[in-house]
Amino acid sequence: MNNLKFNHLKKLEIIIEGEYQEFATDLLDRIGVKGYTIVNNISGKGSHGFHDGHVMFNEDDVLIMIIAAVPESLVSPILQGFAPFYNEHSGVVFVSDIQVTRLVKFSDADSSTDI
Amino acid sequence: MNNLKFNHLKKLEIIIEGEYQEFATDLLDRIGVKGYTIVNNISGKGSHGFHDGHVMFNEDDVLIMIIAAVPESLVSPILQGFAPFYNEHSGVVFVSDIQVTRLVKFSDADSSTDI
Amino acid sequence: MNNLKFNHLKKLEIIIEGEYQEFATDLLDRIGVKGYTIVNNISGKGSHGFHDGHVMFNEDDVLIMIIAAVPESLVSPILQGFAPFYNEHSGVVFVSDIQVTRLVKFSDADSSTDI
Repeated sequence: MNNLKFNHLKKLEIIIEGEYQEFATDLLDRIGVKGYTIVNNISGKGSHGFHDGHVMFNEDDVLIMIIAAVPESLVSPILQGFAPFYNEHSGVVFVSDIQVTRLVKFSDADSSTDI
Repeated sequence: MNNLKFNHLKKLEIIIEGEYQEFATDLLDRIGVKGYTIVNNISGKGSHGFHDGHVMFNEDDVLIMIIAAVPESLVSPILQGFAPFYNEHSGVVFVSDIQVTRLVKFSDADSSTDI
Repeated sequence: MNNLKFNHLKKLEIIIEGEYQEFATDLLDRIGVKGYTIVNNISGKGSHGFHDGHVMFNEDDVLIMIIAAVPESLVSPILQGFAPFYNEHSGVVFVSDIQVTRLVKFSDADSSTDI
């Protein structure tokens, strides 16, 4: 019988100008992030995030949002990796808690939790 | 006077190849999910989610993300419903906690919480 | 040495018909929201959210999702501000917990937390 298992991960939502997509995904690859999803065709305005009081986006910038689910241990390396970039460019990273599920056919001893 | 009430729900973010949209929304309908939102025009790469070490997406796949807010009791039936599909196809489901608000004009005895 | 700091904020995901984008962003501006991101090209169906049993969207509505990260103190004013609108129109607001990071070069006494 199958068991439904959850891995407790951190979701990163990286909002960045579209022209820097390859920089961002290369950085994620180097740090060991195994997958990501990219939402295209987004726009933004404002100063939330890294730089208080600094206008981050103009309304006609072409932005993307890169969504990645990573173990908590990778959050800090990724954010440290992006920090020099965000000192020069607009953007923001949101971090939140998610569960990612997978079906396994037998019990194992990893960090996931039965429900 | 109006009271702001929150329903504590689970947000599902179902990332799936676009050609299977109808399969996914039919499954949600059958399980009793009353609404969903679909983000089109997304792309993805990698192996996060159901299958460790299995490349899920190619960068040029046309993906969608179906967002649904559901009571916790529906999470397991939905994930069990998707499991056979994800054994054959790429994709991932993220689960997280959200509050959904609605305004009510008088107090009631449901599971929501005043703020 | 840089410290990685997190601000604990609330993420609002405001799903609304695209024609009301300016109404929504004006409301956010007036309440003091400093930035937002807009996901275009989404669609939806159903009755989740404000109005139980009320069909909110038709599948061919043009919807947008406005994402904003705000201090908890702004959540209630924003939702109260949107309530009269949602009495007349379709839509839903999801609220969830997020951390937003920024790099600071020296310690300060604000509400953020070292990790």
